[in-house]
Amino acid sequence: MNKTVRAAPLAALEELRALLGDRLSTGASILDEHGRDEAYTPPQRPDAVAFPENTAEVSAIVKICARHGLPVIPYGTGTSLEGQVVPVAGGLSLDMSRMNRVIEVHEKDLDAVVQPGVTRTRLNDELRATGLMFTVDPGADASMGGMASTRASGTNTVRYGTIRENVLALEVVLPDGEIIRTGSRARKSASGYDLTHLFIGAEGTLGVITELTVKLHGLPESTLAATCAFETVDDAVETVIQAIQCGLPMARIELLDEVQMRGMNLLHADLGLAELPHLFLEFHGSEAGVQEQVATFREIAEAFGVRNFDFATRMEDRNRLWAARHQAYYAAKALKPGSSGVVTDCCVPISELARCIGRTKQAIAMSGLVAPLVGHVGDGNFHLVILVDPDDEAEMTRARELASSINRIALSLGGTVTGEHGVGTGKKKYMPAEHGAAYSLMACLKAAVDPLNVMNPGKLV
Amino acid sequence: MNKTVRAAPLAALEELRALLGDRLSTGASILDEHGRDEAYTPPQRPDAVAFPENTAEVSAIVKICARHGLPVIPYGTGTSLEGQVVPVAGGLSLDMSRMNRVIEVHEKDLDAVVQPGVTRTRLNDELRATGLMFTVDPGADASMGGMASTRASGTNTVRYGTIRENVLALEVVLPDGEIIRTGSRARKSASGYDLTHLFIGAEGTLGVITELTVKLHGLPESTLAATCAFETVDDAVETVIQAIQCGLPMARIELLDEVQMRGMNLLHADLGLAELPHLFLEFHGSEAGVQEQVATFREIAEAFGVRNFDFATRMEDRNRLWAARHQAYYAAKALKPGSSGVVTDCCVPISELARCIGRTKQAIAMSGLVAPLVGHVGDGNFHLVILVDPDDEAEMTRARELASSINRIALSLGGTVTGEHGVGTGKKKYMPAEHGAAYSLMACLKAAVDPLNVMNPGKLV
Repeated sequence: MNKTVRAAPLAALEELRALLGDRLSTGASILDEHGRDEAYTPPQRPDAVAFPENTAEVSAIVKICARHGLPVIPYGTGTSLEGQVVPVAGGLSLDMSRMNRVIEVHEKDLDAVVQPGVTRTRLNDELRATGLMFTVDPGADASMGGMASTRASGTNTVRYGTIRENVLALEVVLPDGEIIRTGSRARKSASGYDLTHLFIGAEGTLGVITELTVKLHGLPESTLAATCAFETVDDAVETVIQAIQCGLPMARIELLDEVQMRGMNLLHADLGLAELPHLFLEFHGSEAGVQEQVATFREIAEAFGVRNFDFATRMEDRNRLWAARHQAYYAAKALKPGSSGVVTDCCVPISELARCIGRTKQAIAMSGLVAPLVGHVGDGNFHLVILVDPDDEAEMTRARELASSINRIALSLGGTVTGEHGVGTGKKKYMPAEHGAAYSLMACLKAAVDPLNVMNPGKLV
Repeated sequence: MNKTVRAAPLAALEELRALLGDRLSTGASILDEHGRDEAYTPPQRPDAVAFPENTAEVSAIVKICARHGLPVIPYGTGTSLEGQVVPVAGGLSLDMSRMNRVIEVHEKDLDAVVQPGVTRTRLNDELRATGLMFTVDPGADASMGGMASTRASGTNTVRYGTIRENVLALEVVLPDGEIIRTGSRARKSASGYDLTHLFIGAEGTLGVITELTVKLHGLPESTLAATCAFETVDDAVETVIQAIQCGLPMARIELLDEVQMRGMNLLHADLGLAELPHLFLEFHGSEAGVQEQVATFREIAEAFGVRNFDFATRMEDRNRLWAARHQAYYAAKALKPGSSGVVTDCCVPISELARCIGRTKQAIAMSGLVAPLVGHVGDGNFHLVILVDPDDEAEMTRARELASSINRIALSLGGTVTGEHGVGTGKKKYMPAEHGAAYSLMACLKAAVDPLNVMNPGKLV
């Protein structure tokens, strides 16, 4: 972590002020807000925060910063989980919240063109009349630009893909201020290098995303949500593995372990769920198709001793269920009032999921810490929220060691140290172990695209 | 087209001979074979052809070539369509056909690890006992490395995605001989730049793919193929557009216009199909699911006056149908015996498909040429085979002009100049128009990864 912040060149801030007027802020509360994300990352104030309103302004801002060597840190909703938006070397936080228009919805093509500051729920609100939906749903109401930049996914990735599979085209301001467009609205192309996917997951280190063309999906004719409980996490996981292996097109299949369920009950007593490992499920399709899926799933689950199969057919029951799931982080924290959460996520091939979770639970037990486990297990992806008192240095150290050991387990099983939270500053230390010589190629690309290291320095590479 | 071939540094060939023995060939017929692909691209011999047997050999070969400045041109099956494998600046053709092992099949994870020389039918043969399939199917029996390098797709992309969506991880030898691994067998990851997708579609200009981890899909419980005829291409296309827009999970939906059907009947009289625009269809799912899809599709097609709905439920009938579809190029050529085909492909947003095909048919009529049209229309993608006498310079000029006008039409409708054939040498001229300033970023990436311009020079960038 870079602790030495250079004084921002005064000249740069003066030029930015001339460009943006009162849309350049140096107020203390604004600086504080833009100096942290939702991870337990040490906060660090930017020198100033800019609120651009269009792509031309972003380009002008980036040109000024490049000329003066002032770091630019793109900022969406500040809900990243590995320190991605923290200005570790100071600089300008580029808050995209005013670029929040849904520019075009092409109902016939199942796509939409949006600005990066649009959040996922806002986009879905605007789509309500169309019968279409945008599917990527990390827990937070993140912005489109932020989700693309961190390669976000969420509960229904197992059916509809991560944001990587749901972005067709981008407009990007490069580190020298040049504006480019990548991809097109055509569903496929073999025309040149895949620049779109170079910027997805780049965490703002290669440029600023100023527009996205995203895929939409038709709302399913029929939706059925369900919860079911198992005696052991193993039984739940084996059920998931078999459902995925037999090609069941589950829309959502989420694991919450017995520790997480205890927290859920503290926060959502009305759900009335047993304190046993649970799967939260959703099935999409035609009426008949959903019934067929449920029957197949049930057969698999029964072989693993499923209990308490509860169906939520009414939309309000479904919404309550998924709202509770998306608030899992807060439910976890309810287990240890006043605690902070050290969050980690990993992802392994589905055949290794039971082994990975088993070893993880062992590691938690050995650590003596409380760490509920939830996961998008249909993707082989799960999260821990390790509950700590941030002022207890010894506990923090144990928490970091536990997170490290989970990531080592995932790598040893052919997985990745982050399924969806990204690298930021928090997971840079694992990059050489995960990528080997390929990590040098990432550095080579960064140096080529951003030779002055203006864009979000200190992150990812 | 670069016509000046430097004499290959003799020293490089000597070192390569010492490494490879008789797996380095300079025989005339081998050089001829590796000097062309299936496009009408002027052939150009390589200086030599190498047949490596493992990744370490590829690395050693690339190191020798880099040291001597000898171009390296990765070669799969030579079935590319835009001159991708033609050594326009001479050099070493790197024939990957001996690296043709299916290394691992992970049935539980629905993936396989393969060498780049494995062809798609060979992989599916090896998978036969598993109930799994590899889905990407360009017409030719292309190699896995070649398909990844050209970002191939095919008839069932509309359901299962292009190769871009079906590669999880790669092993790549970089232009300096370094061996890297990108991605992992985990289904998703937010860990660092997306190097896997940087190499997919790079046409061998950034390195040599030496291993691929690809996704597999379960064989459908039920499969039903069908053909249906329409009075006009417009009616067929509108049927496709509506089927896609209503989210029907078609496995294949292929258009063959009346000109192409005439050629089909010359080559496959036994199919006995009317010389009208046709859709060739395939439905995958459960028994009930397939019947549901067919009923919905039929309802849409009937609104557009569908005729001659013929179902092929028996596997041998289905295979005959799709074999005929995959031989569309040869059927086209049967319309003008002795002709060559100038092939072009483009892809547009589905809402623009009817307009794009309408304008294309007008352009064909104005050109006075014979040019059957076939397409993966569910993706918005179609091909023309413009039939020419290659010795008739005036006709060749008209054919090139026709191809150009099709590509301009696609760009004007928000599409791409190539849905699946790639850039090679044939489509480089359209790159600035399609990509604008982003094309310079592609050049910047090429220069960073391959500063000596060793890897397949003259292609794509």
